[in-house]
Amino acid sequence: MKYIGVDIGGMSVKCGIVTEDGKLLYKETAPIKTDDEDVAILKDIAALVDSVIKGGGVDRQDIAGIGIGCPGSVYDEKGIVRYSCNINFRNTLMADIMRKLCGIENVRVSNDANCAALGETKFGAGNGAKNSVMVTLGTGVGTGIVVDGRLLTGNKSAGAEGGHIQINMGGAECGCKKRGHYEAYASATALMAQTEAACKKHPESLLAEYAKKHGIDGKTVFACAEMGDKVAIATLKRYIKYVGMGLVTFANIFFPEVIIIGGGVSNAGDALLKPLQRYVSKNVYGAEYAPKIKVALATLKNDAGIIGAATLCM
Amino acid sequence: MKYIGVDIGGMSVKCGIVTEDGKLLYKETAPIKTDDEDVAILKDIAALVDSVIKGGGVDRQDIAGIGIGCPGSVYDEKGIVRYSCNINFRNTLMADIMRKLCGIENVRVSNDANCAALGETKFGAGNGAKNSVMVTLGTGVGTGIVVDGRLLTGNKSAGAEGGHIQINMGGAECGCKKRGHYEAYASATALMAQTEAACKKHPESLLAEYAKKHGIDGKTVFACAEMGDKVAIATLKRYIKYVGMGLVTFANIFFPEVIIIGGGVSNAGDALLKPLQRYVSKNVYGAEYAPKIKVALATLKNDAGIIGAATLCM
Repeated sequence: MKYIGVDIGGMSVKCGIVTEDGKLLYKETAPIKTDDEDVAILKDIAALVDSVIKGGGVDRQDIAGIGIGCPGSVYDEKGIVRYSCNINFRNTLMADIMRKLCGIENVRVSNDANCAALGETKFGAGNGAKNSVMVTLGTGVGTGIVVDGRLLTGNKSAGAEGGHIQINMGGAECGCKKRGHYEAYASATALMAQTEAACKKHPESLLAEYAKKHGIDGKTVFACAEMGDKVAIATLKRYIKYVGMGLVTFANIFFPEVIIIGGGVSNAGDALLKPLQRYVSKNVYGAEYAPKIKVALATLKNDAGIIGAATLCM
Repeated sequence: MKYIGVDIGGMSVKCGIVTEDGKLLYKETAPIKTDDEDVAILKDIAALVDSVIKGGGVDRQDIAGIGIGCPGSVYDEKGIVRYSCNINFRNTLMADIMRKLCGIENVRVSNDANCAALGETKFGAGNGAKNSVMVTLGTGVGTGIVVDGRLLTGNKSAGAEGGHIQINMGGAECGCKKRGHYEAYASATALMAQTEAACKKHPESLLAEYAKKHGIDGKTVFACAEMGDKVAIATLKRYIKYVGMGLVTFANIFFPEVIIIGGGVSNAGDALLKPLQRYVSKNVYGAEYAPKIKVALATLKNDAGIIGAATLCM
């Protein structure tokens, strides 16, 4: 049997066909109209599922289920998306609607970061660990947490919203409109804002010049830091400290064997990973006496969401 | 059978005799010399255990085990206290040493806040909840977390150090020497420092006058706020916001059915509880769409640590 995994993001939807042993056979990506009515958004997604089934050359009868990862507050058991701060889902009966639209009975929904963590834990970097925290640095910051081998979801699966922990009281405004949340400092969106601010403050820098030429994205500051630009290096150092503060908070609460970094920013590789590992090892509570926590990059990379979502209905 | 529960704190050690159904029959309290050698501290504690057995009028043969709750990083499985920031324990083989000193085989050690959470969950305010977070506002801030009915301890039980989450980057210094941790804002120690600062800033206030007469403790600001002093009301309001920020962080990660507030500060009752409940209900992620989280005062009060520690060896 094959499984469909759908990974809904703030900018696009990814959809793919996944085998029982976690291999991604085929995938497609489509833009998302985040301000549309929820049913209209889901119709677009159902069309993407159809396109993937056709494009992947599989029989609809061979599809054993559809798993969907969605940002925000998801009630897994009932397949309801209660709230998503970047997309117009409000108490959306996602599983029911998709079941009807796609004509496939087995539809499961979970938080996107939970899906990624589940995929990485089962088929990627977290393999073998009993306790893991996966932090996804994308449009927002998502977290998926495995405790003693089980996905942490909280009462009515409203938990694991680690992007919305307080790290700086009264600080930068978050997508959810509260101030000082982790997401407001550590997301790719936040990194781009920090890069833009650095360019404005230092128009003479290589960073500003580079940004003018190529535009700003999550890679800009890494590229310029590698070229030795001091402004980029300082901006990156501060961003890594922000990311690290959240990781240490998760470390002190969960003390997992491994913290997995995913999302677009994680493509920076060692330039992100090595200083983060140092930050966590140095700042974790009782550092000299406590067990080591490994910080690792997601190995399934941007496919973790699709594979993890598909894992939901296996 | 009866069980001994030992609750080690930054200022004193409490020890009592507990029945199988969580009733505390008898207890004693003794001061702790936090700077002594670890073995010397444990000899004092063993003497307290002896005194309790005699004072409680039970036969040593009727004692089925000793459970010990200790602040800091504890390795439950091996009974080792790796590190305690307020007491001179460093990789201390607490279970082994106490086993020899007391001549009782069944000795278990866990983090003090874990013990309190276990006691409250089994015999107190958390009864019936599958997911709970207990926050102990004392000399430091401890947390004990129950996920799906099980105590969260993390790899080698180094986790659940919720007093050391980052809530204000670069902020007040914590007992562990890092900056901006929850404990540095929400502990009784922090509340006393905040009260003292308010007295210095407003020497004309009723708060300052009251403090001069009675000294400052964790109750001072509550007493003066009740008398209508504006400085006390503002100081208390800010403190409650600090405590609330941490609770919301735990709420967004764990989404428990109940958050239990314990420790000396919790004796303030409704003056603490009601505004905290409002703060959590208002600020939790997706507040309008998410399930309600009840904030409750610990019902076992200061005995939760003793009862919970005893529960460890049941």
